[in-house]
Amino acid sequence: MQKNLEWEKGNMFSKRSVETDVLIKKLLKCAVSGTGIHEEFKCMLKQIAAFVRASVGSLLLLMDDGSLQFVAVYGGKEGIIGERLPPGSGIAGVVAESLRPIISNNPSEDERWAKEFAVSIGYIPENILAVPVMTGNKIVGVLEVLNKHGGFNKEDLKLISSVIPILSSVVEKVRLYYVNQKEIERLRALIDISLKLGGMLDLQTLLEGIMETAKEALDAEASSIFMIDKERNDLYFVAATGEKKESLKEIRVPWGKGIVGWVAEHGRTLYVPDVSKDERFYSKVDEKTKFITKSIIAVPLWKKSEIIGVAEVLNKKGGGTFTVEDITVFEAIAKHASIAIENASLYKELEDLFRNAIMLVVNAIEAKDPYTKGHTARVTKYSMLIARTFKMSAEQRRALELAALLHDVGKIGIPDSVLLKPGKLTEEEYALIKEHPSRGAKIMEPLKIPEVIEGILHHHEKYDGSGYPDGIKNGDIPFNARIIAVADAFDAMTTDRPYRKGLPLEEAIRRLKKDSGTHFDPEIVQAFLDVLEVRREEIIKTISS
Amino acid sequence: MQKNLEWEKGNMFSKRSVETDVLIKKLLKCAVSGTGIHEEFKCMLKQIAAFVRASVGSLLLLMDDGSLQFVAVYGGKEGIIGERLPPGSGIAGVVAESLRPIISNNPSEDERWAKEFAVSIGYIPENILAVPVMTGNKIVGVLEVLNKHGGFNKEDLKLISSVIPILSSVVEKVRLYYVNQKEIERLRALIDISLKLGGMLDLQTLLEGIMETAKEALDAEASSIFMIDKERNDLYFVAATGEKKESLKEIRVPWGKGIVGWVAEHGRTLYVPDVSKDERFYSKVDEKTKFITKSIIAVPLWKKSEIIGVAEVLNKKGGGTFTVEDITVFEAIAKHASIAIENASLYKELEDLFRNAIMLVVNAIEAKDPYTKGHTARVTKYSMLIARTFKMSAEQRRALELAALLHDVGKIGIPDSVLLKPGKLTEEEYALIKEHPSRGAKIMEPLKIPEVIEGILHHHEKYDGSGYPDGIKNGDIPFNARIIAVADAFDAMTTDRPYRKGLPLEEAIRRLKKDSGTHFDPEIVQAFLDVLEVRREEIIKTISS
Repeated sequence: MQKNLEWEKGNMFSKRSVETDVLIKKLLKCAVSGTGIHEEFKCMLKQIAAFVRASVGSLLLLMDDGSLQFVAVYGGKEGIIGERLPPGSGIAGVVAESLRPIISNNPSEDERWAKEFAVSIGYIPENILAVPVMTGNKIVGVLEVLNKHGGFNKEDLKLISSVIPILSSVVEKVRLYYVNQKEIERLRALIDISLKLGGMLDLQTLLEGIMETAKEALDAEASSIFMIDKERNDLYFVAATGEKKESLKEIRVPWGKGIVGWVAEHGRTLYVPDVSKDERFYSKVDEKTKFITKSIIAVPLWKKSEIIGVAEVLNKKGGGTFTVEDITVFEAIAKHASIAIENASLYKELEDLFRNAIMLVVNAIEAKDPYTKGHTARVTKYSMLIARTFKMSAEQRRALELAALLHDVGKIGIPDSVLLKPGKLTEEEYALIKEHPSRGAKIMEPLKIPEVIEGILHHHEKYDGSGYPDGIKNGDIPFNARIIAVADAFDAMTTDRPYRKGLPLEEAIRRLKKDSGTHFDPEIVQAFLDVLEVRREEIIKTISS
Repeated sequence: MQKNLEWEKGNMFSKRSVETDVLIKKLLKCAVSGTGIHEEFKCMLKQIAAFVRASVGSLLLLMDDGSLQFVAVYGGKEGIIGERLPPGSGIAGVVAESLRPIISNNPSEDERWAKEFAVSIGYIPENILAVPVMTGNKIVGVLEVLNKHGGFNKEDLKLISSVIPILSSVVEKVRLYYVNQKEIERLRALIDISLKLGGMLDLQTLLEGIMETAKEALDAEASSIFMIDKERNDLYFVAATGEKKESLKEIRVPWGKGIVGWVAEHGRTLYVPDVSKDERFYSKVDEKTKFITKSIIAVPLWKKSEIIGVAEVLNKKGGGTFTVEDITVFEAIAKHASIAIENASLYKELEDLFRNAIMLVVNAIEAKDPYTKGHTARVTKYSMLIARTFKMSAEQRRALELAALLHDVGKIGIPDSVLLKPGKLTEEEYALIKEHPSRGAKIMEPLKIPEVIEGILHHHEKYDGSGYPDGIKNGDIPFNARIIAVADAFDAMTTDRPYRKGLPLEEAIRRLKKDSGTHFDPEIVQAFLDVLEVRREEIIKTISS
């Protein structure tokens, strides 16, 4: 049984009865109790419900995204305070949109009734009277009274309508307060996101961070970032979260295709609430991933005034739709993400530049002595394989890599006549060769990384103290130097030199074992032997590279 | 004439008269007008003022920092809406702190009256009645009525008190709204700051940006940043804004001294409203700068969990004091600044590392040929001096510098027997020497900076096309290469070589002029000659360095 009643705007100043006068006084008393918004409204709801002999009352505020938020409940489940009804949903939603009151004396048979919501909170009312709360011509909320023995009638509506104006002014101010409160929450979350993303200087970590953040902030099922590949003229995945994460990574989207292609081309946000109804949707991605995309928000990522990529979130969790607020939040995240991406990119570029500069030095060393071509790369590879078996930080690994790449840098200053001499060296000449670790350390001084410098300086020390330049032994030899010593010796043994062929692998292993504990740190030899066992094929290939 | 009246809490529900009943109805009517907060309150103020025959009314809300903000005015200067009275200031401020009403029938003789504020808005009232607006035991604002013919009396106070409760509930909600509104403004400003600072990767620019931002956001006279120098165990200025900017930069503060020293040691924010009363204040800075510090907020700057510096703002503009809100804002700025500083520091470290790696290459070149010792540094210096006379971007300058530093890198692969040969070279040997630009370009390939590679490849081209390796001429020769060619030739002429002494400066200049237009780009020769004229002494020093 549903009724749409004629809606007479209540006017307490002309038509009110003695009872409404008493009610107004009671409502004012509630208003000045000073115990807080919830209690104040609860007090009012109690008075209003009693007035029409209903046992439950609730007040919903219209939020800026069109949803209705419960702010007070009397006689019912207080747990729903803070919950929201989506725009147009339920009897209250219909009231808010039509600006007309509704009496529904059998809500479970009423199709307007938000059954799912009621089930979710476990509350099935017997009957409902819902009226819009207006200030001037503007709706600010909905007042509901529920569960009146025998059902609500037109007289109840009249009575309630007459006291709505006294509520409306207060409700509007509380509504404004809530709207602001919501905005504050959003801004605070955004500041946290900004701090989090701002601290990520590693590009891959950052991109993943952006996606995790967006997915969480928008309550989406999945999210991804595409970057523009100008040369290939397409977009490629660089980060994706969600169950289909791995499969997404191989996918490329042709230029201009799909939602992301459109956003990359137009530089504007695009929200597609139902991809099945949008021609731009590029279904090939779903075909490959077996992910079923329902809705998408896609926003451009910028580097200064150039679009460099597109971030998207897919499917609101729980089957709902994204809100205007979600779009705003995502755009704000993208703004912060863009700056963080730019910083991380610049950092990565500089890192590549540095790496290349180091390669220049390596090339310079090898340009001098063609017989050692590839020696540096191999020693570095063996060193890094050994390092993997030890617990080392990323920074420590980086220092070892630099030390290995540059271990022979000191050879640059040694005359070709000595360095490249085919025959046997004189004692003096050998003394000059033996200078290369200390010359290298001196050359490397400006780098100011002690772990690199000592790795170079001591890579010809021996475990028993019989090496050079300082004759230090055991643990006194820096760890990096001990690793490079093993890698360096292994490469010298296994590769061809002008005066001899390289030794067979088994013979090199035998010699390593023999010299373990005298020349070499036994722990490192063992680590390398383990690596040799597991990666035998790979190492055989490296030897002949 | 001042009176402190006994304050009877108004209670409209028991004692009210017929007139108050009428007033309440009028106030409710105002409340439901739906025309917005200001108008609604103005309507109420009008009714209340009329009620006691005052011609002006104003309503002030108590904000979270204790100040009172005007939200509505009836009959007076509406321009003051939004203005704030500092905590305890003026008659309204005394009312808000004492929770007691005040009648002041001659405010210009009343010491509680905020004379300065009244003068600033150009409004001198005849008389004032001010009452606290309370909800429960909590003050939420102050209601003032002004300018009653003959002055206010106890009866007026009684009448007004009786209608306060009807106002209070609404006022409290509006107050909460304003508090949130203020918070939203703060958060939005912070987000802007975060975006701005996040985009600054150059450390010096960033530090100056932080200070400008803090100064502006907190309306301070000056601001500065100190960084901790662990080795010297003190703090040094790295950025300062304000009139004394330059003089501040030389100043160091010993560890543990001063407000900044305290903050660096304790890692906590410190607000000193009056430095003359705080023993920790280190007056030596003021002595040196002639700046008169009155108040300071100092906050620590962090790198992960380590304090790396201290930021401070000095003196609220207009002689006021900083508020709790200012402290919160400054702390939030410091949080974002810390992350930006960390990023910029990491970037700077990597930049230094790259620069050092390039110096390794330079050292490697010079290690080969001791006679060219210093040659690279001098050529680079001359090139950069020439570059200054042209309009070039920072990036272009950087590329030129790299090209100049590395112009002879290709000599690394040339055998010592040729490169260092004291006598005359055979044709074949000379051909080998002439390979160094192309060898250099090849070595530099991994750097992937075309401006650097072409600068190296073509630094032996001649303006008339008679150079090598490609024999290109005029504008076809890359700009960087034309600059390096002049710098390189000048250094070769002016320095000693194994087989001859360096030419006198005048002779070198004569030869440059002679070869201008044949070997060299005349525009660049002219630029260098101009530099030689202006910086003659400096260049003579460089030649013999």
